[in-house]
Amino acid sequence: MGSVGEGELPKKYKAVVYDEPGKVSTKVVELDMPEPGPGEVLINLTHSGVCHSDLGVMTNRWAGLPHPTSPGQVGGHEGVGKIVKMGPGTESSAVKVGDRVGIKWISAICGSCPACLSGHDGVCFNQKVSGYYTPGTFQQYVLGPASYVTPIPESLASDMAAPMLCAGVTVYSALRKSNAQSGDWVVLMGAGGGLGHLATQIASRGMGMRVIGIDAGSKKDIAMDCGAEHFIDHTQGNAEEEVKRITGGLGAQAVLVLTAANAAYGMAMTLLKFGGTLVCVGLPEGELKPIATAYPQMLVAKAQKIVGVAVGDRREAIETLQLAERGVVKTHFRTAKMEDLTKIFEEMDEGKLKGRVVLDLS
Amino acid sequence: MGSVGEGELPKKYKAVVYDEPGKVSTKVVELDMPEPGPGEVLINLTHSGVCHSDLGVMTNRWAGLPHPTSPGQVGGHEGVGKIVKMGPGTESSAVKVGDRVGIKWISAICGSCPACLSGHDGVCFNQKVSGYYTPGTFQQYVLGPASYVTPIPESLASDMAAPMLCAGVTVYSALRKSNAQSGDWVVLMGAGGGLGHLATQIASRGMGMRVIGIDAGSKKDIAMDCGAEHFIDHTQGNAEEEVKRITGGLGAQAVLVLTAANAAYGMAMTLLKFGGTLVCVGLPEGELKPIATAYPQMLVAKAQKIVGVAVGDRREAIETLQLAERGVVKTHFRTAKMEDLTKIFEEMDEGKLKGRVVLDLS
Amino acid sequence: MGSVGEGELPKKYKAVVYDEPGKVSTKVVELDMPEPGPGEVLINLTHSGVCHSDLGVMTNRWAGLPHPTSPGQVGGHEGVGKIVKMGPGTESSAVKVGDRVGIKWISAICGSCPACLSGHDGVCFNQKVSGYYTPGTFQQYVLGPASYVTPIPESLASDMAAPMLCAGVTVYSALRKSNAQSGDWVVLMGAGGGLGHLATQIASRGMGMRVIGIDAGSKKDIAMDCGAEHFIDHTQGNAEEEVKRITGGLGAQAVLVLTAANAAYGMAMTLLKFGGTLVCVGLPEGELKPIATAYPQMLVAKAQKIVGVAVGDRREAIETLQLAERGVVKTHFRTAKMEDLTKIFEEMDEGKLKGRVVLDLS
Amino acid sequence: MGSVGEGELPKKYKAVVYDEPGKVSTKVVELDMPEPGPGEVLINLTHSGVCHSDLGVMTNRWAGLPHPTSPGQVGGHEGVGKIVKMGPGTESSAVKVGDRVGIKWISAICGSCPACLSGHDGVCFNQKVSGYYTPGTFQQYVLGPASYVTPIPESLASDMAAPMLCAGVTVYSALRKSNAQSGDWVVLMGAGGGLGHLATQIASRGMGMRVIGIDAGSKKDIAMDCGAEHFIDHTQGNAEEEVKRITGGLGAQAVLVLTAANAAYGMAMTLLKFGGTLVCVGLPEGELKPIATAYPQMLVAKAQKIVGVAVGDRREAIETLQLAERGVVKTHFRTAKMEDLTKIFEEMDEGKLKGRVVLDLS
Repeated sequence: MGSVGEGELPKKYKAVVYDEPGKVSTKVVELDMPEPGPGEVLINLTHSGVCHSDLGVMTNRWAGLPHPTSPGQVGGHEGVGKIVKMGPGTESSAVKVGDRVGIKWISAICGSCPACLSGHDGVCFNQKVSGYYTPGTFQQYVLGPASYVTPIPESLASDMAAPMLCAGVTVYSALRKSNAQSGDWVVLMGAGGGLGHLATQIASRGMGMRVIGIDAGSKKDIAMDCGAEHFIDHTQGNAEEEVKRITGGLGAQAVLVLTAANAAYGMAMTLLKFGGTLVCVGLPEGELKPIATAYPQMLVAKAQKIVGVAVGDRREAIETLQLAERGVVKTHFRTAKMEDLTKIFEEMDEGKLKGRVVLDLS
Repeated sequence: MGSVGEGELPKKYKAVVYDEPGKVSTKVVELDMPEPGPGEVLINLTHSGVCHSDLGVMTNRWAGLPHPTSPGQVGGHEGVGKIVKMGPGTESSAVKVGDRVGIKWISAICGSCPACLSGHDGVCFNQKVSGYYTPGTFQQYVLGPASYVTPIPESLASDMAAPMLCAGVTVYSALRKSNAQSGDWVVLMGAGGGLGHLATQIASRGMGMRVIGIDAGSKKDIAMDCGAEHFIDHTQGNAEEEVKRITGGLGAQAVLVLTAANAAYGMAMTLLKFGGTLVCVGLPEGELKPIATAYPQMLVAKAQKIVGVAVGDRREAIETLQLAERGVVKTHFRTAKMEDLTKIFEEMDEGKLKGRVVLDLS
Repeated sequence: MGSVGEGELPKKYKAVVYDEPGKVSTKVVELDMPEPGPGEVLINLTHSGVCHSDLGVMTNRWAGLPHPTSPGQVGGHEGVGKIVKMGPGTESSAVKVGDRVGIKWISAICGSCPACLSGHDGVCFNQKVSGYYTPGTFQQYVLGPASYVTPIPESLASDMAAPMLCAGVTVYSALRKSNAQSGDWVVLMGAGGGLGHLATQIASRGMGMRVIGIDAGSKKDIAMDCGAEHFIDHTQGNAEEEVKRITGGLGAQAVLVLTAANAAYGMAMTLLKFGGTLVCVGLPEGELKPIATAYPQMLVAKAQKIVGVAVGDRREAIETLQLAERGVVKTHFRTAKMEDLTKIFEEMDEGKLKGRVVLDLS
Repeated sequence: MGSVGEGELPKKYKAVVYDEPGKVSTKVVELDMPEPGPGEVLINLTHSGVCHSDLGVMTNRWAGLPHPTSPGQVGGHEGVGKIVKMGPGTESSAVKVGDRVGIKWISAICGSCPACLSGHDGVCFNQKVSGYYTPGTFQQYVLGPASYVTPIPESLASDMAAPMLCAGVTVYSALRKSNAQSGDWVVLMGAGGGLGHLATQIASRGMGMRVIGIDAGSKKDIAMDCGAEHFIDHTQGNAEEEVKRITGGLGAQAVLVLTAANAAYGMAMTLLKFGGTLVCVGLPEGELKPIATAYPQMLVAKAQKIVGVAVGDRREAIETLQLAERGVVKTHFRTAKMEDLTKIFEEMDEGKLKGRVVLDLS
């Protein structure tokens, strides 16, 4: 147990809460400094990414969530900062006071449920979700489990690291689970978007895959800059024909759906090679609909697979941060203040936000 | 090049053909003895299984087939017999005159297309289908590629071997591709049927898996006799609840759909554990419909997979025959004569056929 | 935090310690009841297996250990009992007071080192070893981490469960890592021994593998009873020739060395099929010597592998206990009292011990 | 069956033979044009690489070969040219007259032995070796199996393609079998050599791995130019210490031994991470010696693997050629004439040859 010097820790600190869940509204408040419990660490956060999932939690619009958000909830799930105090029972922990660590979407797991035991910690039966189940990262101090916070590589800036903890690790995990090898063609649907522009970089520069990006025409430049070899504007022409042409008539080894459009899922299967894999990442909103082209007859005839990828696990988070540290993958972002958060969410809600926003919490 | 003694080979031999494709009708005819071409062997067949797919080919009812069947087509794709003559260029072949070998659904592959090169010979771009693309196994002599006929283990009777070459290898392949391990729970939908009763034996006795069989109540006895630990009558009660109860609330590691019912596919996903795999084998007839519960949201939330399994490859055929040789898996069958084939197909068409039929061609 | 009723917990309890490490000597003592710290549980043990590794720790003979054993060390690493008290911070733990749990060789891991993160918890950089790093299971009460104790299946008796926690899980893990499939031939060297008789049962009855047991002739009966199809007396005749004959000239897909004899390693490679895997489990004593037949030329020519298997992880422990619960694998053992431990170790040291011994700690 | 126009095919053509096997001596001769047999194609070769293995075959020095080389043997196993005639039974072949194809070390396989059936065609029991079992590629015309010649990608020059068919595919296969992922550290021992400089390019540029090259100091420039991040001069300082320092104390995920030095094998194991894999490629000459540090105790304690990699299969050859076509990997070579071959082998034998030599056969 220890701290950077208890005298230095203030009694109060600043946080942003959802004051009227259901609406796009946040409020900066002062909160009492918490004390780390057994196995916990107290982190002085300096940066937090702002993610589209936060908007979903704040507005209760997201069908996937098990209960409505409470007024006063501190949001956020892409936080980076320094450990300032260790709770009891953390003496032999892998982290210590002064270490820079991150908090991600799944902020804690049990380690003992059947999912954890089989290495699926992304579906832990007792998982805690930052900014929804527990106070999140839109605040200057946060608690986290000593055994599950994510170490940040030394030479990676905190503002660069924050967005990697959600979007970055999700696409990294999806690419790993696609079973595509280096040299294989992969189609990224939504290649120029938040997830897609990171997936394009990681696939092409980090894993040696050959990327065909699909998106609206306005995203062509960012997709090509990120490493796509080919770009298909899905609003023009025939994606299936184009993909077949590029891949010598065979189709792609993997297709990742990185958008939330049901239409993307419908098209995805037609782009696959025999033995190929459709990777589901983006979650369509509204009523549940089956993947329109998931016909048993076609899956059998072409020996194809469909795989759903939950948010990556901690190991994958660490590997994603290593790619970021090496400069293989970068997010475009601008920084903003805690006071700006309502405005940021408004822009996000109106679809006007360009790139990613990282809050400077200091 | 050689033969068992050319003098012994008759000039003519007996075969059963589809005389009026589109109808359930066969006719025994005499055909001229063929000469094996380069790379081919001539086989004196003694037994051929009769499979539901043969009915589909004969009647042109099966939507999946690329062209109508020609009058005079010799059907059949589960044939076993002895090599009696080798064509040119087979000197260094792995088989020789006198060897007992089998002909299966895919009777020849090219070995050079992208599918073959990547070990997916079940989806070879240039595959030949016995009894449809080429003269099949309802005849006393047949040609096959020296490099692709399937060796029959010495102590396995030919009539026992024949049905393994189609139904047996298909379910063997499906179980391998399910990624279920020994000790895992697998649900077999259609556990008492033609595919299912073989899958139940192979899974439980051959691979150490724990089988929950689902089928109509009348199939309970055969499923339990074949090694199922539990049986669920899908016409009674709630399969999802039952499977959860048996598996400690988790669901099964794999669910194999071994029937052609769209309803089975709709139910299948609900029986799966997180990280589990739905294996598509049975092909619904009629219009293509997506798997009703293949929701991206659920696949993602539970990190599940769907996989289509084409007919097994030759290596899997050999491994299936080894299981049969060891007595791990057995088919219930009766033998019949070539002249009886029309009657057999009529019974099959009316759903009256019990067990499997093997033609004695001698 | 809670207990079965604090009033019921005695102040003192009985334990067996190594009073003179370096010698074969133990002593029953009374110890003060410990208090579970943050994240810990207190377990009332009823049974502990006695393992050959305990003898190594007690006598300091085992070259692999990093420091000499301290006088007063409580030994043992195969303990089973009930949780009687939970430490702070265990409220959301997967286990609770009254649960039956086990302590194994590796009694605690950090969960955060590179080995843990990559799923190799058997080589955790900060692992604790029961009965050597921490007080072990030769006592009536022991502390363990709530997040790492092993749940015992309901219907498995505690005395049956204890020996599974070390020998059982080790061979289970080795068989999984052998990459042998059901139906494949595996050679078990030392098939009738402590590890071997469990491996023979698990491989043949649990995993559908075909077992060739190799051992001294006196072990033939136990190996065959445990499910071996063939037995080779390594003191007689030629094992390589025999294995080739049984396997159709090819050799075995996997060879597991389950004895500590350097000679077994020397012979092992010659028994392997092309593409096969030698699995190292048994640890030869004395000076380090390379595997005598690990020639690069042969490994290359036959595309073979050698793999070392550390003690299994917790998931594997749970799967092993499930096999034991189903009756697939059983240990031959007799029970003894804490007072008998010195005598047991003396017999073990003289090689006179038959089967396994489990201490009754109640 | 067809040809480019039979009239165009000469009756005689030029070849280089080993006139005095055992000595470094070759002779240009005229041979009769062969006729393609069943399943064969006739290829008009334009280029053949000259490999160190050819020297071994010519001089009978290579311990691994089963029989002495015959006088008059046409050597060579890296040939590229156009198909000019198809033998009988090749009508449905994947290649046709006019296609550019390659002949590699293993020039033909049986497709039916246990090795072929299990996807290990590099260890086919009936394999033919070009330039040793069959007339090789140091000639203007060669026969090959229609089903096993390797298609050359359209935009890859024949002289660039030739050396890929042996050295390139070998290291590609070794990297695939190392189980190292993109982002992992791999150590390449002999990074600046014939195999090593190709492996360095493929690992770093093709597969996203991070390469530490080890070799004599004079090879530093080529290794770094080929994409190594770090270089260790094994004649200076301590490789183990250096590798640990670079990899954060852990060691490398894979170490490939690409030289024939026993000393390299001895050092290799010490450079590995827990769970890492030593890949054997280079074949030491002289007496068989075990890998000096292949201790069961260490393999177990660190859960490490050793794997031998035979020459790559045809699929891997095709994937290697695709990398070459994309410019990911390039060989440094100069072209020479058939008449120069003795001089080339003399230089090779004296260790004076820089880079690779490709014969221009036209």
